Amino acid sequence: MNTDMTTTNSESDWWKWGDAYKRKSLTDFPILHQFLKDRWNQPFDHTHPLKSSFSIHTNEERAANVYNILKQQVSHVRIENSLSVRLKKALGKSYPDVLSALSDDPIEVADVVVFPKNHDEILQVLKVCLEHKILIVPFGGGSNVVRAFSLPKNDLPRIVIDMSLNNALLNLDETNHTAIFGGGIYGPAIEKHLNAKGYTLGHFPQSFEYSTLGGWLATRSAGQESSGYGRIDEIVISMRIATPVGEISVGNYEGDAEGINLKSVFLGSEASLGIITEAKVRIHPLPQYKSWLVAVFPSFQHGVDALKQLVQKDIFPTVARFSDELETEYLKLVSSEVGVLADVKSLISNIVLKLKGIEKPTIMMVRFDGTQSEAELNRKLAASIFEKNKGFDIGDGIGKKWEHSRFGLPYLRDDLVERGVFVDTMETVVPWDKVDALRKKVQANLLMSDAFGKEKGVILAHVSHVYTSSASIYFTVITAQQKGSEYQQWEEIKNIVTNTIVSEGGAVSHHHSIGTDHRKWYLEKTDVLTKKVLQNIKSTLDPHHIMNPGKLFDEQ
Amino acid sequence: MNTDMTTTNSESDWWKWGDAYKRKSLTDFPILHQFLKDRWNQPFDHTHPLKSSFSIHTNEERAANVYNILKQQVSHVRIENSLSVRLKKALGKSYPDVLSALSDDPIEVADVVVFPKNHDEILQVLKVCLEHKILIVPFGGGSNVVRAFSLPKNDLPRIVIDMSLNNALLNLDETNHTAIFGGGIYGPAIEKHLNAKGYTLGHFPQSFEYSTLGGWLATRSAGQESSGYGRIDEIVISMRIATPVGEISVGNYEGDAEGINLKSVFLGSEASLGIITEAKVRIHPLPQYKSWLVAVFPSFQHGVDALKQLVQKDIFPTVARFSDELETEYLKLVSSEVGVLADVKSLISNIVLKLKGIEKPTIMMVRFDGTQSEAELNRKLAASIFEKNKGFDIGDGIGKKWEHSRFGLPYLRDDLVERGVFVDTMETVVPWDKVDALRKKVQANLLMSDAFGKEKGVILAHVSHVYTSSASIYFTVITAQQKGSEYQQWEEIKNIVTNTIVSEGGAVSHHHSIGTDHRKWYLEKTDVLTKKVLQNIKSTLDPHHIMNPGKLFDEQ
Repeated sequence: MNTDMTTTNSESDWWKWGDAYKRKSLTDFPILHQFLKDRWNQPFDHTHPLKSSFSIHTNEERAANVYNILKQQVSHVRIENSLSVRLKKALGKSYPDVLSALSDDPIEVADVVVFPKNHDEILQVLKVCLEHKILIVPFGGGSNVVRAFSLPKNDLPRIVIDMSLNNALLNLDETNHTAIFGGGIYGPAIEKHLNAKGYTLGHFPQSFEYSTLGGWLATRSAGQESSGYGRIDEIVISMRIATPVGEISVGNYEGDAEGINLKSVFLGSEASLGIITEAKVRIHPLPQYKSWLVAVFPSFQHGVDALKQLVQKDIFPTVARFSDELETEYLKLVSSEVGVLADVKSLISNIVLKLKGIEKPTIMMVRFDGTQSEAELNRKLAASIFEKNKGFDIGDGIGKKWEHSRFGLPYLRDDLVERGVFVDTMETVVPWDKVDALRKKVQANLLMSDAFGKEKGVILAHVSHVYTSSASIYFTVITAQQKGSEYQQWEEIKNIVTNTIVSEGGAVSHHHSIGTDHRKWYLEKTDVLTKKVLQNIKSTLDPHHIMNPGKLFDEQ
Repeated sequence: MNTDMTTTNSESDWWKWGDAYKRKSLTDFPILHQFLKDRWNQPFDHTHPLKSSFSIHTNEERAANVYNILKQQVSHVRIENSLSVRLKKALGKSYPDVLSALSDDPIEVADVVVFPKNHDEILQVLKVCLEHKILIVPFGGGSNVVRAFSLPKNDLPRIVIDMSLNNALLNLDETNHTAIFGGGIYGPAIEKHLNAKGYTLGHFPQSFEYSTLGGWLATRSAGQESSGYGRIDEIVISMRIATPVGEISVGNYEGDAEGINLKSVFLGSEASLGIITEAKVRIHPLPQYKSWLVAVFPSFQHGVDALKQLVQKDIFPTVARFSDELETEYLKLVSSEVGVLADVKSLISNIVLKLKGIEKPTIMMVRFDGTQSEAELNRKLAASIFEKNKGFDIGDGIGKKWEHSRFGLPYLRDDLVERGVFVDTMETVVPWDKVDALRKKVQANLLMSDAFGKEKGVILAHVSHVYTSSASIYFTVITAQQKGSEYQQWEEIKNIVTNTIVSEGGAVSHHHSIGTDHRKWYLEKTDVLTKKVLQNIKSTLDPHHIMNPGKLFDEQ
């Protein structure tokens, strides 16, 4: 079979984040725009020329074959083979994905996109694919940022399974506080179902609006409120999984000793063993009361110490977010329309800062939920711990603002990239005593790098999740794109950051999973026997390696 | 090779629970003794004749071979081959184990008992055993009650690995609040190490004094304070495991998305894949303050509703223990020396009970830990929820008494069995809405059974652990032994209870694991693909099936 380069007309913005009407432009953020102009001495005022056609890498003979097989064998399942639909399910939301969308290089697409409605249909599709050795790449919300969604670059038949029709609320158990959903349900639909009855799932990743329950499970997602409600690993009770060789069920009870629970084998499996078609989750009553505590600390280490002391007293805020000096300073760059979004120095007079001996403020936001008395008590306990660590309370305004607009920032990213700005986020989790050292080492190593633009580059950091023994650090890296070598620039920056994370004792990922981007570090860190066990599980459930090939430990 | 029946002289009480000087006799509990006499019209005043010799099933030629192999290849590891040592590591603490100790039937013993001091020595022993196909049964505290510790009844060479020398505190990290221990460390040694520095692990199963960290992990243990500190699954961060084919490490961070975490494959694995040689655990500061709330409810369902409402508001007591009508009534049978141990009716005057409309009181004990303000706030919130469910506060005396003497009750069990009393405990976890129905069905089904002695039998129940969606129920079954068919009687009762648990939707076990006793139900409930995955993991790590043979899914 030959592969074809072809083109298709398509809306120019299919690859962008979210809803078109919510999109932001750099021109909406004049302070940020001015800052970028001044720092790099570039205008950043030309967006990428609008593309109305995209170059596609495909094999239409192979695609026709796959279409015919599926049409014959699972005719009741919705199957789409137009180039336009296939293109729309070809990229995730990572920085390299955006570069691909903007470049003229051909984009790999699937032979068809299928839209199964439920567990049974998914199982049927997988069976046919096993028989015909057709590769399967599931598409949840499509918003993964480390290329856990990516199409194989070989010439084998392949389909994308779009999960969005498998989005039912299958059970809402108000007595036991559990719900069962189809794996393809999006965040807002989950909350809509639950809020209507007075409940919440409590899982709010940055991608909330464009990610699915199944995707969260397959990537071991953590949400912005996971310090309170728990990571998705803790929220899920049981799962139904469709594999090429049949169905497997894992978990059943919350709290049992019924032998080995294989749940964790599928958490973070990135669909390389099967597709999580249904999941039973814990639900919680909507909080009666939320209480924000926003404080300013004289240094990053002061705030880290305060957070550590707080959670090590078993007081876990629902939300915890602590920005370092630079991130705090740069908050003013994004206007109040989008994010946290305020100039701390305009909130706190310089006189006050001087009185407190704070030269470079760092800003901490924590939220406590529950009954009013609980939330206020925890806020009080936290305030007292913060005070001991030289943090001082600046009121709850910024916290409320952040909460209101927290899903807005991704809308700005695509426009920045189109204008020639490099912007990517990278994250890890590390024991408490290594948090500040790791952060400083990442900064130091980037500052030596040409790809980062040396001292012109900007690296911001915040603590985003807290645990008894560890905390996550979330980095935002901003610089000017190096024209003509955008991908190589990204690779170099990614290498510097992740090499440093790993050598300083951090995890390859805290909540973005492995995908394509973290694979080499993951394979280096994973011991021989673990890989052997995982490969044997893979061979048992996916004997022809058709499931999301090339991910994790899969050598295909 | 022939197998021999031989006898050995040994202390008569090697098979009994705990320290000899702490043992209790039925004569210490005159009210209980009188009750048993009256109910079954039997004196129960002859203890079993003291045995000074025990009949042993062994093969001394085979045993000598095994001893020589190990002496040659791992000469630096302590190896014991006296019949007396081998006998002491031949039984667990289940009711059938006690029957075996009392009967004249020969007891299966290992060929030798080895006492490795650390991970490396264990790995070396496993390697030799793989090479020579010698079966391995690890012995932690030896207190498992569902025969997860049991020796194979075949003629293959076998050793017991006693873990008690692998008991070091390898690391105490006061910054990150973690500790690393050797898997063979006992509960009190852990707490001694930690308490000295102001910390606690917070894991207190009934077997606390005679069980090990490795054993807790291998059986997915829950402790009496697990509603607060979490089950052992949640306490552990990472593990080092010795398998016959080498070392495997699982887990690393608290909160990461570094691919698939195989931790849960080894939790509950009952040493059928390898031996957990070291574990890193979360530790907590010793609670500043503990506040008991003890309340009486008019029915079991009232108290269950109250507990459910409490935890579904995300208020989790550290300890939760709620006895049904019969258990509450029978508390008076065990004097204040041992357990909770009080006659509720003597604490609360009949007049008060009548005023409250309570005919058959049920007693609830919950404990809240933390700072004084937190603990008192939670106690207040709980008291208000209890009140809404017709529970009334009776002061904290019984809670404190229970806490003080909670590890005492197992000491009475052996004496009861020696005197002809049947006493066993069985437990499960079930969604909240099924708690009371399951309990009633177990009671009803036992009452129809001759083995239980029909209406003469006693079945007590309490809720012992609480979760958002579920609760555990712990049953105590008491009746007179049927002389000559003690084991069959136990089997019949066990079948009735576990069949009912499973048919009513409960887990085969909440915290005792599968062992030998729960295996048939576990295999029935586990789906085909799960078994296949587990068998392939077994073949990868233990290709000759030498690890704790015949447990879980192992067909040997």
